[in-house]
Amino acid sequence: MSGFKYEVLKNDSKTPARIGRLTTPHSVIETPVFMPVGTLATVKALSPEEIKDLGAQIILANTYHLYLRPGTDVIEKAGGVHKFMNWDRSLLTDSGGFQIFSLSKLRKITDEGCTFSSVVDGSRHFLTPEDAMKIQNILGSDIMMAFDECTESGVSEAKARDAMERTLRWLDRCYKVSEDTSKQMLFPIIQGNMFKNLRIESAKRTAEYARCGIAVGGLSVGEPKPIMYEMLEELYPYYPKDQPRYLMGVGSVDCLVEGVYRGIDMFDCVLPTRIARNGTAMTFRGNINLRNARFKEDFRPIDSECDCYACRNYTRAYIRHLIISDEIFGGRLVSIHNIRTLMRLTDKMKAAIREDRFKEFHDSFMAEYKDKADVDAIP
Amino acid sequence: MSGFKYEVLKNDSKTPARIGRLTTPHSVIETPVFMPVGTLATVKALSPEEIKDLGAQIILANTYHLYLRPGTDVIEKAGGVHKFMNWDRSLLTDSGGFQIFSLSKLRKITDEGCTFSSVVDGSRHFLTPEDAMKIQNILGSDIMMAFDECTESGVSEAKARDAMERTLRWLDRCYKVSEDTSKQMLFPIIQGNMFKNLRIESAKRTAEYARCGIAVGGLSVGEPKPIMYEMLEELYPYYPKDQPRYLMGVGSVDCLVEGVYRGIDMFDCVLPTRIARNGTAMTFRGNINLRNARFKEDFRPIDSECDCYACRNYTRAYIRHLIISDEIFGGRLVSIHNIRTLMRLTDKMKAAIREDRFKEFHDSFMAEYKDKADVDAIP
Repeated sequence: MSGFKYEVLKNDSKTPARIGRLTTPHSVIETPVFMPVGTLATVKALSPEEIKDLGAQIILANTYHLYLRPGTDVIEKAGGVHKFMNWDRSLLTDSGGFQIFSLSKLRKITDEGCTFSSVVDGSRHFLTPEDAMKIQNILGSDIMMAFDECTESGVSEAKARDAMERTLRWLDRCYKVSEDTSKQMLFPIIQGNMFKNLRIESAKRTAEYARCGIAVGGLSVGEPKPIMYEMLEELYPYYPKDQPRYLMGVGSVDCLVEGVYRGIDMFDCVLPTRIARNGTAMTFRGNINLRNARFKEDFRPIDSECDCYACRNYTRAYIRHLIISDEIFGGRLVSIHNIRTLMRLTDKMKAAIREDRFKEFHDSFMAEYKDKADVDAIP
Repeated sequence: MSGFKYEVLKNDSKTPARIGRLTTPHSVIETPVFMPVGTLATVKALSPEEIKDLGAQIILANTYHLYLRPGTDVIEKAGGVHKFMNWDRSLLTDSGGFQIFSLSKLRKITDEGCTFSSVVDGSRHFLTPEDAMKIQNILGSDIMMAFDECTESGVSEAKARDAMERTLRWLDRCYKVSEDTSKQMLFPIIQGNMFKNLRIESAKRTAEYARCGIAVGGLSVGEPKPIMYEMLEELYPYYPKDQPRYLMGVGSVDCLVEGVYRGIDMFDCVLPTRIARNGTAMTFRGNINLRNARFKEDFRPIDSECDCYACRNYTRAYIRHLIISDEIFGGRLVSIHNIRTLMRLTDKMKAAIREDRFKEFHDSFMAEYKDKADVDAIP
């Protein structure tokens, strides 16, 4: 019997937005959900307890990175990533496909699999779709991702089709070795670059492999945001209706709102923690850079409406001082704030959907949102 | 009325070791005590709550660093360091004298004060003893340190005497501007380099300025440990009996035991957090370097007898993986472990003193301690 279940709890009547509940062997996840990324079996700077306090029911780890360091053998002996990192809620692992595409310079892709050089030490490796599944079996994630080929924005349609077709052939192989869904669920990934016809074809053929979740890959790879939103609109009619839809690698405030508006249920991204360590804080009005001199004697919290540990206890002036001084605690505080901001955002979106006013929420929220916030507009 | 009090609760009968209780306006501190260092108003990588959980009743901050960044004006507007960093227990600030000596290349010392260049941006600054007191008034520490001149190990006796005499003249000036002991207590600092006669003379003359605490400065500056221990033995007869004695800048496991054995009540050092970020863990048997390949598949805690968060939840293999991968959480975990190790050590020493067996404790502890631990001897 499958350890997985997805129930739609509420559909917004005017948009594809919805509230759902995904059950895995480790936890119950309300969607829309943002999943913090713990690339190397640690969400950078934070403890598992802090991540739980932020409200996270699921985090992500990276197969590519863990395969290279500490190595699959170490994690196998540790009893899987959950035990290794002391995380008892749900875990999603990507397949490594995207990292081979984005990180490894020397890569060669054939139907059999990928040859690539390690980003850690340059050593050569070869991975097949079956290997990617086997490694994720050992990592012990609740949700495994199919091994896919990603293409950059701007390639020819022929190249994009080749990669899409190969991704589908690989998906078939991944599917065959992941039939046991008692502990792990395979999410197939829609590809097709920025070509609508390819995206639709990929969605239709990929949906056949979806049992309790489907992902959209190959977006947010450099294309303008409106292109991404357009692709999501094209894809929407072809998703399995009763399964969660996961938009990979997306995690800004505006993209979460626009994604949910187009039927997305799950998101992940390193963005909130990565920009945090450089002093950029997320708010519902846009991002602010705490390094800015204007915050030097600003003794208000980052966001007075935020309930996170950083906003309850520290001022912009103090956090700015920490960031300017390269103090680790600064990156920690802003990471906490940024993840909590995305958690508060999904809570806000769920409330709007519950009250069947997501369209209004979306419109007024986006009217006030700027990439770079008007600081005076932050509560 | 002074907000400070020191009571000796128990004297060991065979050694100068003792248990005491120092009361400040912010907390009650049992001695012997190790004070974690929060140079820039943050104990590197840790939150105030974590530091409290470790058992710390007092931490240290650095006047030199805070004066340069974020600047005294910012901290004044924030309402002092306590409020700025969200720390409600005791705080000790050094005077900046040691940092001018150890960090600033271009420095010129006259009787009036010190000219030095900033370690942050090279800008020139001039500080008098009165300035150092005024800055510490603004920082709002419970315990202020006198502005002193430190000399390196190896200078001539004439130079050491000059610095000692100047330190005494400066002490007189510091004392005159810190007569109000309701909120802040000035600790004078004994200097004298490695010359016994100078140390004794400095101790006698410095003791006249001690009201509720006296410090030993200018040790642990590169001299062999036996020399430091010898100096402490020389000094012992000249301390005010009813006041705590603070050995500045010392914080290794062995030096804490040897210090208490020679009548020291208070210690501070960046060592436990600094070496932690590089993966060196402290134990009662000596230090271990978690980067070592032998820990790759070692699924035991750092120290199975340690009750810290790191040892209760994580393995050497996991922490090694974090450290090797430059993950912030690795440095956090080892920092927690190292500070807790020193806290557990002072608890152990207090228990031995309470039972009047500190001599035996010292001898058996030091017989088993090595700078580099025999890993198999760690529980």
